[in-house]
Amino acid sequence: MASSTEGQVITCKAAVAWEPNKPLTIEDVEVAPPQANEVRIQILFTALCHTDAYTWSGKDPEGLFPCILGHEAAGIVESVGEGVTDVKPGDHVIPCYQAECGECKFCKSGKTNLCGKVRAATGVGVMMNDRKPRFSIKGKPIYHFMGTSTFSQYTVVHDVSVAKIHPDAALDKVCLLGCGVPTGLGAVWNTAKVEPGSIVAIFGLGTVGLAVAEGAKSAGASRIIGIDIDSNKFDTAKNFGVTEFINPKDHEKPIQQVISDLTDGGVDYSFECIGNVSVMRSALECTHKGWGTSVVVGVAASGQEISTRPFQLVTGRVWKGTAFGGFKSRSQVPWLVEKYLKKEIKVDEYVTHNLTLAEINEAFDLTHEGKCLRCVLALH
Amino acid sequence: MASSTEGQVITCKAAVAWEPNKPLTIEDVEVAPPQANEVRIQILFTALCHTDAYTWSGKDPEGLFPCILGHEAAGIVESVGEGVTDVKPGDHVIPCYQAECGECKFCKSGKTNLCGKVRAATGVGVMMNDRKPRFSIKGKPIYHFMGTSTFSQYTVVHDVSVAKIHPDAALDKVCLLGCGVPTGLGAVWNTAKVEPGSIVAIFGLGTVGLAVAEGAKSAGASRIIGIDIDSNKFDTAKNFGVTEFINPKDHEKPIQQVISDLTDGGVDYSFECIGNVSVMRSALECTHKGWGTSVVVGVAASGQEISTRPFQLVTGRVWKGTAFGGFKSRSQVPWLVEKYLKKEIKVDEYVTHNLTLAEINEAFDLTHEGKCLRCVLALH
Ligand SMILES: NC(=O)c1ccc[n+]([C@@H]2O[C@H](COP(=O)([O-])OP(=O)(O)OC[C@H]3O[C@@H](n4cnc5c(N)ncnc54)[C@H](O)[C@@H]3O)[C@@H](O)[C@H]2O)c1
Ligand SMILES: NC(=O)c1ccc[n+]([C@@H]2O[C@H](COP(=O)([O-])OP(=O)(O)OC[C@H]3O[C@@H](n4cnc5c(N)ncnc54)[C@H](O)[C@@H]3O)[C@@H](O)[C@H]2O)c1
Ligand SMILES: [Zn+2]
Ligand SMILES: [Zn+2]
Ligand SMILES: [Zn+2]
Ligand SMILES: [Zn+2]
Repeated sequence: MASSTEGQVITCKAAVAWEPNKPLTIEDVEVAPPQANEVRIQILFTALCHTDAYTWSGKDPEGLFPCILGHEAAGIVESVGEGVTDVKPGDHVIPCYQAECGECKFCKSGKTNLCGKVRAATGVGVMMNDRKPRFSIKGKPIYHFMGTSTFSQYTVVHDVSVAKIHPDAALDKVCLLGCGVPTGLGAVWNTAKVEPGSIVAIFGLGTVGLAVAEGAKSAGASRIIGIDIDSNKFDTAKNFGVTEFINPKDHEKPIQQVISDLTDGGVDYSFECIGNVSVMRSALECTHKGWGTSVVVGVAASGQEISTRPFQLVTGRVWKGTAFGGFKSRSQVPWLVEKYLKKEIKVDEYVTHNLTLAEINEAFDLTHEGKCLRCVLALH
Repeated sequence: MASSTEGQVITCKAAVAWEPNKPLTIEDVEVAPPQANEVRIQILFTALCHTDAYTWSGKDPEGLFPCILGHEAAGIVESVGEGVTDVKPGDHVIPCYQAECGECKFCKSGKTNLCGKVRAATGVGVMMNDRKPRFSIKGKPIYHFMGTSTFSQYTVVHDVSVAKIHPDAALDKVCLLGCGVPTGLGAVWNTAKVEPGSIVAIFGLGTVGLAVAEGAKSAGASRIIGIDIDSNKFDTAKNFGVTEFINPKDHEKPIQQVISDLTDGGVDYSFECIGNVSVMRSALECTHKGWGTSVVVGVAASGQEISTRPFQLVTGRVWKGTAFGGFKSRSQVPWLVEKYLKKEIKVDEYVTHNLTLAEINEAFDLTHEGKCLRCVLALH
């Protein structure tokens, strides 16, 4: 199925971040054809995640402007460059900010989902082949973001960053499997490896925290304690498996003490799903002496540090973190899509708002104010 | 074999710490008979470890004076209290500061060697039965230390803290299996679980660091990098398996950068065997992205904190700690003794000085000045 646009520059709509903290503007962007080992994707739906908002805010010292943000999306392959064999035009795909080449030191280690193949380029907003972006506006280059740039009707990504998924899956839903939901599920299944009967604490009940709850429930956790400063979150959280709720504002004692008292010495596993370094400390310290494991999932602002007394570790607690929930993107995102099709994992339930690309600034506002789980934008 | 002293108060020599930072004095101490579930042990040999020196220095806020320090020792059971079934007079034993009751939440978890059974008493220098010490001088009570108090010719410990060992083992050597050597071996075998081919970094090449090196060598590590500010340590360290040596003083760059450069991105496992919180950070940060694991073994001074950027964890590093190397004391110390008898682990090589109880202050000086690995004191 060759498309009529193959080999041509495509001019399409994209939301461009010209400078930090200024509203995005919808522009006509030229998207160059894919070069060797590159794939051009027609993005149909994209959601917003906090990393987009963080880089947009200007707080990310590695943020490059002007750029096209976006990394939680789904679409259809429009055309492929030389040497691309795993996908072809017409395939339904999810672009993945964690690549999976299968060949690098990381991929071959069997110990991590972080792939090193294209990071030198994606980290600085360009493609590997010529170290240049494929986006431009009247000849002026526009940087890529996280190797995905899904706030555009068409984007170009490296072939090692494309997960081919089952064509039956609704793209306006499974776009969420590009970041937040797998991160939460995988934090439980891959990083912490929660066992049946465990007591779990989740700090922050946004999309990521709720996906942790769902993962913990499916892993057989006996108690799932949700902690959020917004008590309104509890009603929704129950549907994802949270069994008890604590609002730190209702307590005088440090929250780790409150949790320890409620659980005869602490929880077996805790997850920080906010990005707040002082909560990361509480999350570690509320785990049980001897075996408690705490997973940092939230992304803190640049330069911030976590700390604790080393005695916490010497007495058996373990401090870990997770990126994309430890899932290998190209091999496991398709598996998550199939689990969704078999109704084994929730996805629809995280979509609270449906908007269009033109309404993207409104979506940023909703994300910023914590009024949504996920806003999904239709791009066409 | 009933001893003539059974049921009697024994008056014997012990080194008493009357107050912080003042030389110990050798005193005639009365040691009461063991009560129910207690064991009185004739200590034949004791070594010194840093925890003794730390509490003696007064920096340990939980230190209680006057007390009898010491926790790395070996001896022979003199008599047992009611209900003691696992050991009898004449048995060769190692008193263990980590108890193992087999019944508490910790022991039954299968996840930790920390036992909760007698901690409420040993943490405050007394015995469980009557919350009183068994030591006194002219009626004045003298506190226990770590549930062991081995700087005395006789001591009383809880039965859950006594490991019965093979009678063929030389007590002036295997006393070391009461703390430092198992801590290092176990940090590798139990806590980190180092695999063949791994690259390992060890910060601090004292007894604990050298035992880590030995453990790493036996686990099949391909490179064992020793880091110490005292370059004299390298010669000895080679005999324990260290293959490369770095003195941080020889480098301008932060040591984690030096190590990362030498190892194509970092080591697989690192161990902090000093007790310095800034080195603990370096030890974490010199491990490889994606899978590096760092184990805190050293004990930092009270109130000190470790810190790092959470990104270190989010990108796959794991921060752990170990107490007594994760070994279950009563079940595994006898196994270590047998490994020593079969020449599968070194012990003799850590003994650099042999002194008597009367020379204990000299032993503290040697320990303090870093001039020894282990000083072993003969008590009789
Ligand atoms: N590690 C990864 O790979 C990865 C991937 C995706 C997202 N993330 C990060 O995960 C975090 C959560 O993402 P999300 O989309 O669920 O965010 P969200 O903003 O929807 O949810 C955060 C929740 O935390 C609550 N909260 C804020 N401060 C709190 C505090 N002090 N105590 C308790 N609760 C508090 C908020 O009320 C909100 O419900 C973000 O930091 C995001 O960047 C990480
Ligand atoms: N976790 C446990 O269960 C446990 C058990 C026993 C001992 N420990 C602790 O382990 C630590 C080591 O014990 P040890 O008996 O081997 O001590 P040690 O003093 O014999 O060895 C420490 C070594 O570290 C080196 N050193 C000091 N500062 C350094 C620095 N900044 N960088 C590099 N090297 C440095 C010294 O030169 C020395 O060789 C102590 O803190 C002790 O309290 C912990
Ligand atoms: Zn995201
Ligand atoms: Zn790779
Ligand atoms: Zn010790
Ligand atoms: Zn126990």
